[in-house]
Formats: sequence, C-alpha cells, structure tokens
Amino acid sequence: MPSSARPQANSSIGEFSLIRTLRQRYRASTPQLLRGIGDDAAVIAPRRRRLCLLTTDLLSEGVHFDCRSAGFADIGFRAAAANLSDIAAMGGRPEYLLVSLAIPPGATARHVHELYRGMMTACRRYRVKLIGGDTSASRGGWFVNITLTGSATSGCILFRSGARAGDDLYVTGTLGDSRAGLSLLQRRNGTASARGLAAAQRRFLIRRHLRPTARIREGMWLSQAAWATSAIDLSDGLSGDLRHLCTESRVGAVIELSALPISSACRQYAESVKEDARTFALAGGEDYELLFTVPARKRMRFHRASAQHRVRATRVGRVTAAEEGLRMMLSDGRERALPSIGYEHFR
Amino acid sequence: MPSSARPQANSSIGEFSLIRTLRQRYRASTPQLLRGIGDDAAVIAPRRRRLCLLTTDLLSEGVHFDCRSAGFADIGFRAAAANLSDIAAMGGRPEYLLVSLAIPPGATARHVHELYRGMMTACRRYRVKLIGGDTSASRGGWFVNITLTGSATSGCILFRSGARAGDDLYVTGTLGDSRAGLSLLQRRNGTASARGLAAAQRRFLIRRHLRPTARIREGMWLSQAAWATSAIDLSDGLSGDLRHLCTESRVGAVIELSALPISSACRQYAESVKEDARTFALAGGEDYELLFTVPARKRMRFHRASAQHRVRATRVGRVTAAEEGLRMMLSDGRERALPSIGYEHFR
Repeated sequence: MPSSARPQANSSIGEFSLIRTLRQRYRASTPQLLRGIGDDAAVIAPRRRRLCLLTTDLLSEGVHFDCRSAGFADIGFRAAAANLSDIAAMGGRPEYLLVSLAIPPGATARHVHELYRGMMTACRRYRVKLIGGDTSASRGGWFVNITLTGSATSGCILFRSGARAGDDLYVTGTLGDSRAGLSLLQRRNGTASARGLAAAQRRFLIRRHLRPTARIREGMWLSQAAWATSAIDLSDGLSGDLRHLCTESRVGAVIELSALPISSACRQYAESVKEDARTFALAGGEDYELLFTVPARKRMRFHRASAQHRVRATRVGRVTAAEEGLRMMLSDGRERALPSIGYEHFR
Repeated sequence: MPSSARPQANSSIGEFSLIRTLRQRYRASTPQLLRGIGDDAAVIAPRRRRLCLLTTDLLSEGVHFDCRSAGFADIGFRAAAANLSDIAAMGGRPEYLLVSLAIPPGATARHVHELYRGMMTACRRYRVKLIGGDTSASRGGWFVNITLTGSATSGCILFRSGARAGDDLYVTGTLGDSRAGLSLLQRRNGTASARGLAAAQRRFLIRRHLRPTARIREGMWLSQAAWATSAIDLSDGLSGDLRHLCTESRVGAVIELSALPISSACRQYAESVKEDARTFALAGGEDYELLFTVPARKRMRFHRASAQHRVRATRVGRVTAAEEGLRMMLSDGRERALPSIGYEHFR
C-alpha cells in the first residue's frame, strides 16, 4: 500500500504528499468500497453472486514504452488499457485499480501526476476506482505495475480454453494499427518516410498506439449473450495470441489472410514503407482487440446481432482439430504454417 | 497476466516455460479458485459474507534488498512477508498472490525459481495460492511487485483510524531486530565489528531481517476477539508507523522508551556497535510486527487472554488527544517530542 514512506523513496516527490493528492483527486465512495487508499490494505465488499477477476501487468521503460516518444499521460493510459483489455477478454466488468510505480532519479511530481491522469482517463468510462498502490525509487528507469480487479457472473466468463473445432474465429476492430503507429513514432522523420500518408491517418495510427481502446463493452456482450466460446486479447499480435488460445483449447486453427480487417491508414502506411500490411496485422502487438470464437452454426445470427449492437467483428478463420496445427490461407487458397512471430512476408 | 510472451522479455529465461513450470509446481485447486495462472485474468469465487482485502508492495533492488547480502529465496520470502504483514494489520486471512517480476540481463531461471520458492515458503503456512503475475525485462536491476488478496468478516477489520485517546498502545514481538540484522549483513566484517555477539544471536538477527514473520495469527485474533481498536504493521519503524496511525485516527500518543520490547541479541548488538538499542527499536524498519491499540479498561483481561493465546504483546505507551502530539517518555519520566525518523540518541 502507498502508505509506507520508505526513507529511501524518491525524496523529490514525497510519497505522502503524493498519496494525499491522489486521495483527494481520485477519492471514491461507493457502498462496495469500504476503504481505499491510505490503510494497510483496501477493503471491498464483493457483489453478491459475482465472481472476482484479477489481472496484473508490468510495463518497463525501454521495453514497453519510451518516454521520448510518448507522454506520461499516454504511458499511463496504455498501462491501464493493457489491464482493462485482460478483463475485457474474460467478459468482465473492471472495478478497482492498484498502481505501483518505480520512479527514477530526475522524475518530477508532474510526471507522476500525468501518469495517474492517463490511467484514470482510460478507466473513467468504466468507473474503475483507484484503491491503492506503492511507490519506490528506481535506479533503472520507470516501472509501472497495475493490478486490476473485475467481476463477472458465473457462467458468463470467457476462457481461453473454450474453443472447439468447427468454431469460427473472429476479431474486433482492425489489426496492425498500433504497430504502424509505433513505427511512425520511432521514425524521427516520420513525415518524409511515410509518403502518401495523410495527416489524419498518421494521427489515427499514433492514437491507436498511444490510446488503445480496451474492448470492455464487446467482451461483456459476447459473454453475456453467450455468443463466444473462448476469447483472448491481442497484446502479442494475432499470430502469437492465437497460439495461446489454441494451446489452452487444445485445437488448431486456420487464419484467412485476405479476411484480416486492416484500416486504410495501416494499409497506406505499410505501402509507404514497402511492407505487407498483413504482416502488421498478424505480428504487430498491442492492438488490444479481442480474438474470440463463435460456433459456426450461429454465424448468420451472430452477424445480425453484432451489427445490431454495433460490435465490429470480422470473421478471420476457423478452429480446426489440434492435429492440423496453426495455418494461414493465402489469397489463392494455398495453406502454409502460421509463422510463430516476427516479420515474414506472405506473398 | 503471465501469459503474454512479449518478444522483448528476457529471452534467456523464457516466459512460457517459466509459466508452465510455475503452474505445475504451484498448481492450486479449490472450489473458490476457478482459474489461476494461464488465462487473461484469474477467477475467484469470493467467500460468502466475507470482505475482500487487497494490498500491493513494490520492492526494488538496491533500495529494498541487495542481491549481494541476501539470497533470492530470502528476497522472495521478505517480499511476500511484507504483503502478508499488510493483511495481518487488517486482521485478515491472506488468500491469493499475483507476482510481477522485472528481470535484469544476466539473471537465470534459477534466480527466478529461487525467488518464487522463497515467496511460496512464506505463504505456505497460510495456504495462499499463486494465481497470476507478469514478467518483463529490466534494464535496471530486479523489481518484485506482489499483490496479495485476503478476506475478513465485516465488523472484524482493523483500520488505522480506530484508535481513541485513552487506549493503550501495544506491539507484538520484539523491535529493532531486523535493523540490527541488516547492519550485520552490511558489515563485511560483521564478526569482528560486533564483539560479544554470540553466533546464535547473529543468526537470530539476520534471520529476523531476511525471514520476518508476518503476524497473521495475531492480527486475526486481535480483530476477531475484538480486542484492538486499530492496527498498523511496522514496516517503517515504530516512530514512523505510529505517526501514520495517529494521523489516521486523529490522536496523539506517548511511547514509554523503557517499555520497548528489545531482544537480548539486539541489545547485545547495539552495545557492540556503541548504539542505543532503543534507536533500533524506534527507527529501525521492516520488523513486520503489529502496532495496535486496546481500550485501557480491558488491560487486565487483555493481558490474561494474550498470554493464554500465546500472543506476545507488550504495552509500549498510550494514545492521547491529538493536541498533545507524538511524544516519548524517557526512563526518568521526562517527556520529549518523538523524533520523526532517524538515529537520534535518547539518553
């Protein structure tokens, strides 16, 4: 809990004044939240007949984010979105947030407040409450660890293990935008090197990287209306996360490359840097879209219902027997093994 | 969740093989735990009529521990004990553990497994289950973030805010041992510099630093038998943590220096390095004992009951009105302001 003022902690910030400010700014009071920030532990009354979901994600400077190309509010937003996305993939409703920060020398209170502001911006629409955390000095850059709780009704939880041979494979939204946005941020001279990309497209891709939308609404709908048999969020890229889902479900899968939903901005960017947009879609991580499975016999009904509920879902393949492994179908109908990860070309 | 194999993560260890091993080794199955390690989030069925406690602690190499003087199992044990102690201070029962690790270059799988072994050793007696976590590469040493959940019955939770003027102040166990143990570890030539200290005393102090006992049993007894009106765990030292408790309870306090429970080993060590043992007791952190308050009218009954239940509790002072501030009473009865923190002398 953030209540411990370790004498070694970053003294330029002052853990106690930080906690006081955070308490005032993000103070929350609900009948469920009996004690938030400021005691040895937070105290929550679980909702009746709801199961509790718990997830945690650790983001390191230089590995998951770069303070030179992202603002602190962006870093906070993405850290929260990564956790929200885990709850979305279970079909849950996010509820409470605990935040641990390791703060390097030279950091200012403003950096910390910006981080929190970004996190709470990502959480606001779901009314997620900040209930605790910890801070420490760091000798090696920023570390942001978020633990997020959520809740779901028994019988309405999406596991990775529920996919069955014959199910259709779907993804929400479009794929590869985040990777394209990251590439743009990493190119110092992004304008010149991505010719033909309109300013609006550039902004769209960068925003998709810095401010990803966790698919909470979609996950809850898929689980509560019992459409999906399994789900996982796309943090490592479609190729990698499909592998996790298939391992847990003990199935194989075929991805139809021509079906991958790719935004025109991503397509345009890929073209400008002479890459295949499908590479971004397959291997680019941190889209935070959902990959999920729906029994094929429900296909028509699902397409109607998802349109009605404004859930953008694209069928990208199907689940097969485990023996068939992971494959991708090229435009001409030929099949190849799905590459494990990385930037291969699929021509 | 540990399921994301970020390509940037420490490749010499391999997140997936780590997760597989941890899953096998610490696999837990109870009716309450519906899903542990390996999905996007863990799923728990909260116990009926129990409140949920949540705490998180971040430990950084070079700030909270030193890999040169502590083994990885010790580091893991202490990290878990720090969190267990937070649950103890609420009067709760610890239940589930999530662990995030930032792993520096050069670390081996053995280091990681030792860390987990230490953590799970600290947790075993309470049957705490490992249900998730995350790993990342680190460019600046080890970071260990633990989130621990617990449960407690409504009406049987100890807050920092419940102390009232007139209550007696108590601590469990003895104070200052951890600080003395740390000093011993930090002195390369500990043997020579701590003359008169028997080998058993040295081992005792070092063990009190490396393998602290969270006072779970004591906390549960104090809350369930409704003895304590407030509690906090001693992570920052009596002087600092008393301040937190008094701030939250809006009271003052007097500590009786002569009453502080100090082990003979700590006393001996302090003497050998020409320090005042009471300094260790007041300012030395990480004892992970409990500081709590009991109404003075229950004093005799409490002393009998604590002896009967083998809870070592020492009365160290009393709670006063807020206006009287924080004071300490010297051996001759004079009172002085309680120093905020640090190594002053009290002669």
